[in-house]
Amino acid sequence: MVKVGVMGYGTIGSGVVEIIERNNSVLAGRIGDAIEVKSVLDIREFEGDPIHDKIVHDYKALAADPEISIVVETMGGVEPAFTFVKEMLENGKSVCTSNKALVADKGAELFQIAKANGVSFLYEASVGGGIPIIRNLSETLTAEVIEEIAGILNGTTNYMLTMMSEEGWEYEDALKDAQAKGYAEKDPTADVEGFDACRKIAILTSLITGRTVDFETIPTEGISKVTATDIKYAKAMGRAIKLIATSVVAGDTYVARVAPYLVPSTHTLYHVSDVFNAVFVHGNMLDDAMFYGSGAGKLPTASAVVADIVEIAKNPGKVIDMSWSDEKLVLGDVSEMTTAFFVRTKKDIAAVKAVFGDVELVTAEGVSGEIGFVTPIISEKDFAAKSSALGDVIGYLRMK
Amino acid sequence: MVKVGVMGYGTIGSGVVEIIERNNSVLAGRIGDAIEVKSVLDIREFEGDPIHDKIVHDYKALAADPEISIVVETMGGVEPAFTFVKEMLENGKSVCTSNKALVADKGAELFQIAKANGVSFLYEASVGGGIPIIRNLSETLTAEVIEEIAGILNGTTNYMLTMMSEEGWEYEDALKDAQAKGYAEKDPTADVEGFDACRKIAILTSLITGRTVDFETIPTEGISKVTATDIKYAKAMGRAIKLIATSVVAGDTYVARVAPYLVPSTHTLYHVSDVFNAVFVHGNMLDDAMFYGSGAGKLPTASAVVADIVEIAKNPGKVIDMSWSDEKLVLGDVSEMTTAFFVRTKKDIAAVKAVFGDVELVTAEGVSGEIGFVTPIISEKDFAAKSSALGDVIGYLRMK
Repeated sequence: MVKVGVMGYGTIGSGVVEIIERNNSVLAGRIGDAIEVKSVLDIREFEGDPIHDKIVHDYKALAADPEISIVVETMGGVEPAFTFVKEMLENGKSVCTSNKALVADKGAELFQIAKANGVSFLYEASVGGGIPIIRNLSETLTAEVIEEIAGILNGTTNYMLTMMSEEGWEYEDALKDAQAKGYAEKDPTADVEGFDACRKIAILTSLITGRTVDFETIPTEGISKVTATDIKYAKAMGRAIKLIATSVVAGDTYVARVAPYLVPSTHTLYHVSDVFNAVFVHGNMLDDAMFYGSGAGKLPTASAVVADIVEIAKNPGKVIDMSWSDEKLVLGDVSEMTTAFFVRTKKDIAAVKAVFGDVELVTAEGVSGEIGFVTPIISEKDFAAKSSALGDVIGYLRMK
Repeated sequence: MVKVGVMGYGTIGSGVVEIIERNNSVLAGRIGDAIEVKSVLDIREFEGDPIHDKIVHDYKALAADPEISIVVETMGGVEPAFTFVKEMLENGKSVCTSNKALVADKGAELFQIAKANGVSFLYEASVGGGIPIIRNLSETLTAEVIEEIAGILNGTTNYMLTMMSEEGWEYEDALKDAQAKGYAEKDPTADVEGFDACRKIAILTSLITGRTVDFETIPTEGISKVTATDIKYAKAMGRAIKLIATSVVAGDTYVARVAPYLVPSTHTLYHVSDVFNAVFVHGNMLDDAMFYGSGAGKLPTASAVVADIVEIAKNPGKVIDMSWSDEKLVLGDVSEMTTAFFVRTKKDIAAVKAVFGDVELVTAEGVSGEIGFVTPIISEKDFAAKSSALGDVIGYLRMK
C-alpha cells in the first residue's frame, strides 16, 4: 500500500485527493500496488467534510509518520512550504509539488536535499498545469538540443487577452470579468504583470540547462499596458497579442523574456485561446512541436501532481532526477536580442522614417490621431535609442 | 560505451545515425555513458559514403555481436523486420523501431519475447513521427483514464487536404503535387486510403487498453473521395476537412474509426495544417490536451527513435514496459456510434426532410444542381438506412 500525505487542502490539494479516489483502481494497476491518501495537513478542520478524519495540523507529525512515503505540497508560496518540504525530504519522503514559487526559488537546494536522502523531488504541476511539459523536456525529448521555448504559461492573462480580442474590451473590463469568474485574484499583480510566467520560464530554462536561472534577472512585462487600440492594430495585421514567456539559445547560454508579443496566425500559439496554456518547443532535430492543454484548474493541475506520485510509487528506492544544480546560469544580454517592433506614436511619418528608416505603416479601423508602424528587425538596444530619439511613443509590442 | 546497431539505412535509419553523431555529447551526458553506432545492416554497400565501413549484410552476425546492446529497426514492413527483430531480442538486445506495420501486427508477440529475454521493445517513432505520443500515453498522463484520442496521424493526407483547401484543387491535383514533393509514394494507397492512420490508431488503442486491437476491425475510409466541392461546403460551414483516426471509450471497450471529418474552427485540430501531425487527447481529469509536431520526416522521426535509445541506455538491465497483452480487445459496435452527418444529394428539400426530419441546409458559393445539409445527431445504422431511403446521395462526411 502506497500511503500519501497532502500538505494544503485548497484547490489543487483537494483535486489530488479526488483523483486518487476516483481513478483509484487505474492508478493501482499502473503502480502495481494500492494507493490511498492517509493524512492531509491544513490549518482548517473541515468539520462535516469526509476529509475531516484525515486532517492533521502538525507538519512534524506528518514527517514522522513512517507509513507515509510520498508527500504532496500544494500550499503555494515559498514559506512555510520550503520548511515543510525540507522536513519531509529529510525524513525520507519523496515530495511532489505544484508550487512554482518554491521550485523557482529553492529548486536546486531541494534537489540536493532529496538526493542526499535518497528520495525524489518532482514538480510537474508547477508549470503548465495539466500539460506534462516538465516530463517532456526531461524524459521525452531526450534526443534534442532545445533551441527555443515559447510558452503561453498563464491562463488568467490569456483569458483576458482573448476577451479583449473577442469583445473589444479595455484591459480593466477584462480584468473585472476574470476576477468575477474566479480566474484572477483580488490582487492580480502576479498574473497580469507576468511574475507568474517569469517563474515558470525560469524553471523550464533551469531544467533544460541543468543550472539555476535567477528569475529576477528575466526582463518581465505583463499585459497591463495592452489596450483595446493595440488589439485593433493586431487584428489589422492578422495577429493576436499573447503574453509569451520565452527562452532562446544564445551561444552557450539562453536569453529569456516575458512580454506581450504580436503572434502571426501562421504560428501555432496564435490559436491558443481562453484559459488554455501551450508550450511551443523548437528542438535542433525535432523542429517545431507544441504541447497544449489546461494550464490551470483543479483537476488538470492535480492530474500532473498524481502523475508525479505514480512515477515515484512505480520506482520504489529510485531517485527520479529532474534536477538542476545550484550553479547559476548567467542569461544572455537581452539588449543584443533582435526583433521587429510594432510602435504607436504621435509623431508624423517623416519623423518616423528619419529615425527608423524603412518602416511598414499599419492602419486600424477607428484609430486616428496617431500612427502605427512596424520597424525593421533591430536590437533591443537600438530600439530603445531610436524610440527615445523619436519621442511621443504611445506604446510598442514585439513581433513574434 | 553504448554500442548501437541500425537495421535499414533509409531515411529514418540514416537520421538516427546523424542524430547520434550531431548530438553526441548531449546524448552522452543524458545517458551517462558514451554512445556510438557500431554497425548498420543494409543490403546496399554505400561505397564512398562514410557509413560504408559500418555496413554489414548478415542480420545473424549483428545479433551475435556481443558489443551491441541496442538495435534500431527502421526497415519498415512486417517481414523480414519481424524475423530480424525477434532474433535481436532473443540475443538479449533491446530494440527500438519506427515501424508501425510491425508494431500493429506483431506488437504483443514481440513484447513477450522482449520480456522473456529481459530486454525492451520500444516504438515511440511508430506513431506521430517526432511527437512523443507513446511516452505521453504510457509514462506521462498516468493519472488519467483516456476517454478519447483523435489524431491527425498521416502527414501526406493532411498536406493534400491543406492544399485542396488553400488552392481549391481537386484530389488528383493534390496527389500529384504531394508525389512531386516526395510526400506521397508512387502507390499512395496506404496513405490516402487511411491504412497508415488505421495501424497507428490501433497501436494507440492497444497501448491505452493493454490489449491487442486488430487493426483490420477498424472501419477505415481515406480521403480519395473528398472533392473540391466538399471543401467549398466545409468553408461555408467554417470547418476544415481532416482525416482523423479516433478512438473513444464505450463502456468497457473503445470504438475506433478512421475517416475524413468536418472539424469546426473551435477544435484545436482545425489549425493543424500541412504535413504536421497532432494528437488530441481527452482525459477524465485532464480534460482536453493536444500534442503537435512533425509527424514524419527524417530527423523528427529519428529523434523519437533516439529518445527510445536514451531511455534504454539510461536504465541498463531494466525492461521498459510500454506493452500490451496478446488478449484481443473487441472494439465496440460502430453502428451504434452517433454523430451529425453532412450530406450532398440530388434530391429536393422536401424529400430530404421527409427522411431526415429537421436538417440544416448548407449552401456553398458556385455549387448548384444539388443540395447540402447537416442531419441531426443520429446513429451510423440510422444514417445508413436513411441515406439509402433518400437515394441519390453524392457524398457525405461526419461532423466532428
